[in-house]
Amino acid sequence: MNMYELINKKKNKGELSKEEIEFIIEGYTKGDIPDYQMSAFLMAVCLNHMTHEETANLTIAMANSGDLLDLSEIEGVKVDKHSTGGVGDKTSLVLGPMVAALGLPVAKMSGRGLGHTGGTIDKLESFPGFSTSLSTEQFIENVNKIKLAIVGQTYNLAPADKKIYALRDVTATVDNISLIASSIMSKKLASGADVIVLDVKTGSGAFMKSYEDSLALANEMVQIGTLANKPTYAVITDMNQPLGRAVGNALEVKEAIETLNGQGPEDLLEVSIALTSYMLLGAGRVKSAKEGKDLLLETIRNKSALDKMAQFVNAQGGDSEFVYNPGLLKLASIKYDLKSPSDGYISEIRTDEVGMASLLLGGGRVTKDSKIDLSVGIFIHKKLGDKVSKGETLATLYANDDNKRREAKKRLLNAFIINKEKAARPPYIYSVVTKDGVIKIV
Amino acid sequence: MNMYELINKKKNKGELSKEEIEFIIEGYTKGDIPDYQMSAFLMAVCLNHMTHEETANLTIAMANSGDLLDLSEIEGVKVDKHSTGGVGDKTSLVLGPMVAALGLPVAKMSGRGLGHTGGTIDKLESFPGFSTSLSTEQFIENVNKIKLAIVGQTYNLAPADKKIYALRDVTATVDNISLIASSIMSKKLASGADVIVLDVKTGSGAFMKSYEDSLALANEMVQIGTLANKPTYAVITDMNQPLGRAVGNALEVKEAIETLNGQGPEDLLEVSIALTSYMLLGAGRVKSAKEGKDLLLETIRNKSALDKMAQFVNAQGGDSEFVYNPGLLKLASIKYDLKSPSDGYISEIRTDEVGMASLLLGGGRVTKDSKIDLSVGIFIHKKLGDKVSKGETLATLYANDDNKRREAKKRLLNAFIINKEKAARPPYIYSVVTKDGVIKIV
Repeated sequence: MNMYELINKKKNKGELSKEEIEFIIEGYTKGDIPDYQMSAFLMAVCLNHMTHEETANLTIAMANSGDLLDLSEIEGVKVDKHSTGGVGDKTSLVLGPMVAALGLPVAKMSGRGLGHTGGTIDKLESFPGFSTSLSTEQFIENVNKIKLAIVGQTYNLAPADKKIYALRDVTATVDNISLIASSIMSKKLASGADVIVLDVKTGSGAFMKSYEDSLALANEMVQIGTLANKPTYAVITDMNQPLGRAVGNALEVKEAIETLNGQGPEDLLEVSIALTSYMLLGAGRVKSAKEGKDLLLETIRNKSALDKMAQFVNAQGGDSEFVYNPGLLKLASIKYDLKSPSDGYISEIRTDEVGMASLLLGGGRVTKDSKIDLSVGIFIHKKLGDKVSKGETLATLYANDDNKRREAKKRLLNAFIINKEKAARPPYIYSVVTKDGVIKIV
Repeated sequence: MNMYELINKKKNKGELSKEEIEFIIEGYTKGDIPDYQMSAFLMAVCLNHMTHEETANLTIAMANSGDLLDLSEIEGVKVDKHSTGGVGDKTSLVLGPMVAALGLPVAKMSGRGLGHTGGTIDKLESFPGFSTSLSTEQFIENVNKIKLAIVGQTYNLAPADKKIYALRDVTATVDNISLIASSIMSKKLASGADVIVLDVKTGSGAFMKSYEDSLALANEMVQIGTLANKPTYAVITDMNQPLGRAVGNALEVKEAIETLNGQGPEDLLEVSIALTSYMLLGAGRVKSAKEGKDLLLETIRNKSALDKMAQFVNAQGGDSEFVYNPGLLKLASIKYDLKSPSDGYISEIRTDEVGMASLLLGGGRVTKDSKIDLSVGIFIHKKLGDKVSKGETLATLYANDDNKRREAKKRLLNAFIINKEKAARPPYIYSVVTKDGVIKIV
């Protein structure tokens, strides 16, 4: 077996065997296969595609290229969720406590990454004293005891993915469903969960703009999970505007707490509930998503999810007082209301511009070494379909630097498109992809 | 402009402009564009193809990547020929003297390269004293005086092609018509000829096995030449068996001399005459290929081509006595007759195996540093369609080492397929591609 023949096979629309794919991934991870061969191969994959089976084998080979997290010491069915990414996406902070409140273990490993806000572990650092660097023993003990722990990624998970992703990024081989799906799923498989629920965002602010592309990606990932013998569901959710109203680290934590307290925005609650109900279904905890939804709403009504959040924050060194009184969370000192320039209805929110405004305020990372300001962000008052009068507040900016505030304001003003006619509000959830097919929600 | 965008454009079936192609070739030659981007681009070209215009622009950009030979000091229309390569191909040794005898200048620069025999300049070194390393001044003076000079390639011609070829060779991006055609034509354009005649081999022993592929390559190269404003013709000739009977360096020189003396094999003569008549046509020396053919046959009848060969060998330091008495050329000491194992007709000659036998005898180069034995080779007695009796000689091997002779004999025996029924002899020439269309010969 040699790489030349395998490139040639894919170039001629051949189907690669499991062994051939393992040869490629092992060779490339070790450095035996040079970048220039891998990039030719990736281009052939982009243009000639991979079958579902090839994609699953690629994913498993990438998952096996580094450490495999062993969660066997954790009792019960471990459930995990992954989002393809969007603005204002704080569902992890809502669903973790809900699932744990129902007794299912959530052992989450989360990256910091680049973006318009920090990752989940950055956000959690808004709680003074909160630590995301637990030892493996402490991590497992916490999950066994309180059913919820979230730590930073210290393991070498799926290094093949990291290397391939960097190469795809400079060789115009990013936009292939098999390569995107295997990149996401290889890390999920390596991180040891038994049940995987995927939040596939769709819309102008998502990686996949069209519903068809989102569905294709969702399908591919569910097929991978299924071929890897893990119950896997993908919920396709809206990203034509930020999720909820808060964008920024402390602001998002605050909104998540409000949601657990029964006072959160409807879209965030609905999306979180939908994702979580499939976690329960996958774990065999309920017989239907509907049954899951009822159980989950009860964790909010009876405050058990909120209490779980407090318990979790406390267990990782944070002050649980902040959970019961989120007004304590530190927000930036400059509070600026962005006023509407005209009368009308919000017909479009350029989600990317909202994200960029948050990044300009200092809420996210441009490079790996950027320092995040957890206290800055944006609170959105007007969302799609809302009526607005000239001079009314569209959004509030939280800034610590007036120059940054001015820059961010320009981007944010640009984000709101106001029209005379009322536009329909997009649905929160479009459909759910299961191994047996697609369940249409709208 | 950046390479990522250009890879992406070709990946999305876009057509690249002249400037974009120049950017790629300049950047890659200089080392600004890394191998891994170039190989992704080449794979996209293989799968999404290039238009004729893109291919011509690629070729011109590669030709311009290094030295451009300036032959302006040579009087008259400079003509050149290139063959896509085959076994027993010694047409350069026949057509050079014929063209020069008619007063047209042939200024040939030839590589050594790898293969089953040496290149033209290796073969010419069979003449004791012959030198292929002339100064540029001497080279030009010789052409002006006797109309024929052949030297080794000392210039840095089309370095982009060299670099791209090496990359294609390891990334399974060899078999694309645009890339093959531009590789050949870039060197031809850089070497300064005014008229280009291409010998495109077709058949089991050729790079292009099928007539359709050979025609496509011929077409592409003629289009490139035409777009570069050089009269260009491609003659599609047979390579289902070696051309002529001699394979090996001194043996081929001997056969070329015999041909110039009117005693050569019919196929070699016909192919050489066809190629040369289009050189004359392209140079405006004749009004039709037919007129050219008559003139050329006359150079053989009146021995002017043979005399020109003697003059040429003499001008480059060789002993012209060998031209009038080719029996003086040194052949290997072991002469072995390969006998037919059965009665029948030659129905197939595995040309590649004949080439391999020559290489095993030491007649060609495996690596750039291999030393060639000019005296070894194979003389083929029986060709396609010939009747043969058991025990009759199929071919004679010329060897200097009995172990090598034994190895070569095995390969050679394997090359001859003998059948009870007589098979038709393939034609020598299939068609000629001109800028105005294809002239069918058979």
